[in-house]
Amino acid sequence: MSSKTSRADFEAVFPSLVKDLSDHAIQYGIPSTALEWFQNSLNANTPGGKLNRGLSVPDTGLALLGKPLDDEQFKHLCTLGWFTELLQAFFLVSDDMMDSSITRRGEPCWYRRPGVGLIAINDAFMLESGIYVLLKKHFRSHPAYVDLIELFHEVTFQTELGQLCDLLTAPEDNVNLDNFNMDKFNFIVVYKTAYYSFYLPVALALHYLQLATPANLRQAHDILIPLGQYFQAQDDYLDVFGKPEQIGKIGTDIKDNKCSWVINQALKRCSPEQRKVLEESYGRKDDALEAKVKVVFNELDLERVYREFEEEQVGKIRSMIENLDESEGLKKGVFESFLAKIYKRDK
Amino acid sequence: MSSKTSRADFEAVFPSLVKDLSDHAIQYGIPSTALEWFQNSLNANTPGGKLNRGLSVPDTGLALLGKPLDDEQFKHLCTLGWFTELLQAFFLVSDDMMDSSITRRGEPCWYRRPGVGLIAINDAFMLESGIYVLLKKHFRSHPAYVDLIELFHEVTFQTELGQLCDLLTAPEDNVNLDNFNMDKFNFIVVYKTAYYSFYLPVALALHYLQLATPANLRQAHDILIPLGQYFQAQDDYLDVFGKPEQIGKIGTDIKDNKCSWVINQALKRCSPEQRKVLEESYGRKDDALEAKVKVVFNELDLERVYREFEEEQVGKIRSMIENLDESEGLKKGVFESFLAKIYKRDK
Repeated sequence: MSSKTSRADFEAVFPSLVKDLSDHAIQYGIPSTALEWFQNSLNANTPGGKLNRGLSVPDTGLALLGKPLDDEQFKHLCTLGWFTELLQAFFLVSDDMMDSSITRRGEPCWYRRPGVGLIAINDAFMLESGIYVLLKKHFRSHPAYVDLIELFHEVTFQTELGQLCDLLTAPEDNVNLDNFNMDKFNFIVVYKTAYYSFYLPVALALHYLQLATPANLRQAHDILIPLGQYFQAQDDYLDVFGKPEQIGKIGTDIKDNKCSWVINQALKRCSPEQRKVLEESYGRKDDALEAKVKVVFNELDLERVYREFEEEQVGKIRSMIENLDESEGLKKGVFESFLAKIYKRDK
Repeated sequence: MSSKTSRADFEAVFPSLVKDLSDHAIQYGIPSTALEWFQNSLNANTPGGKLNRGLSVPDTGLALLGKPLDDEQFKHLCTLGWFTELLQAFFLVSDDMMDSSITRRGEPCWYRRPGVGLIAINDAFMLESGIYVLLKKHFRSHPAYVDLIELFHEVTFQTELGQLCDLLTAPEDNVNLDNFNMDKFNFIVVYKTAYYSFYLPVALALHYLQLATPANLRQAHDILIPLGQYFQAQDDYLDVFGKPEQIGKIGTDIKDNKCSWVINQALKRCSPEQRKVLEESYGRKDDALEAKVKVVFNELDLERVYREFEEEQVGKIRSMIENLDESEGLKKGVFESFLAKIYKRDK
């Protein structure tokens, strides 16, 4: 089952949100140079990605309702979807600065564009603030308004905790594999990625359709967090073992000292000699040392370890979907479509 | 009339808020290194300033009630006061990065502390997020909960707009006095400073005491925004004309190319010859050029211009306070104490 919401229909909603935010700033008498800057930041940083998070909000709505969305529902669910993309934009603009990244989506990172630099910090703030300005404008009278706000607050805080842990665990300038372990890896994955990428879009659709009972939120959480863990392990696996022509990029996790699924599995299984090689070669900007790390990964047969993990994790997720209690309006189809997009992907 | 809330009593509330935030993070299983980092950031960046914004929340509560606060009211109003200090900490940590500042409150700026660097961006985010975690914990059942959240959202967005305009108007590396004018100066002052420093604390106390009628909020706004404009003009005046031994610092606005009240007044009044001097000398890191700028400022008798502005602005504010409609529970004393703290200060 693939996405039911057309990318073009979803994208068509975004300009109206830029207009809403512009009108809000214009009402304050914002000077034109600042207004144009804000609009450029919104347009440069929010659309342009895969839009998986954003699209999954109307897709979840569709799966929950079991019938086509009416025009208002579509507009509202796409608007909520764009909030997940604004949140993502807020994180990406700032993560790129903290990671000293060079490019994003094939373009120079926002902070590296001419004249931007550290102003990008404030631009990131404004991408986040835009969510709440728009929530108030479009959902002030919705019965779940407070729940929607609190959901964004909580998921934002969770993601920031995950990012903090990631920054402290894997500083690029100080390789120390003693910092890594599966507990930290799991904390980082769940908090930095799974909540905002997997739980948030589904929870938004549930709140919007007034199906966010405690049991439904709990079931969604208990499936989507492991799904996010599976997704990140897969992402880390593909970074090392994926074919660049398939995944569309050259993996850099080994050179970047990332606390990834692959290195953590290696550390669990390696001999003292292999660990020595990893300690001397991981996290260095050097092709030969990166190759030595890959030799150890291959000696440990981590491709097989990944395949076994994948089958086990997907098996657990499938079984939870199978046993889902639909009595309060949650639907198996919500999760089946998420899983179908991820399982055995090679890019 | 001076502050009625003792600094020590106010400060005594903060550790319990650090504990609340720690407990919230611990519940998620945050690794200990990340927890300690977060606590250090909270303690290093939130207390330690003048606490004017924070103290003015319980002080406003006191003036509104006209009698001592009970223990719960005191704890709640101080907690709301600490939220204004958390918001301030969020802005200061990030402003210091954007301005490449060296010290803050006599210590190295947070981002310049050993091992911090760009992690300070995420630390700033978490100072902001802390407000909403604590709002939910302490005010979820308060009738004004949604108003309190929306007030923080709106004031945050306003401050970010002001900061954006400031960053675009006065880049340190590109002096162009054509960028400056009183409209932009006023926008920056009102949005970057007046809303969160003057309007926010009073609006919080009004909401908490359920006195936030539209008329009361409007009257508070209409007095506090001009008061903030007066405060900033005074701050800018003291930066240039204040005695370092009185204001406790050496002013750097001229060298830093700041769009300040003083330069904008000079630009309104200068001859073509004087403008040429300003264009060649303002915003340069050079003592001799700074001295030339000060000669022009003195030729234009800006000290007298400031004194006249001060008397006129304070006269307007006094008259608004005098004519305040107290019928819905707002009190003149709220504003009298603000004004008394600012008028004719020399530090």
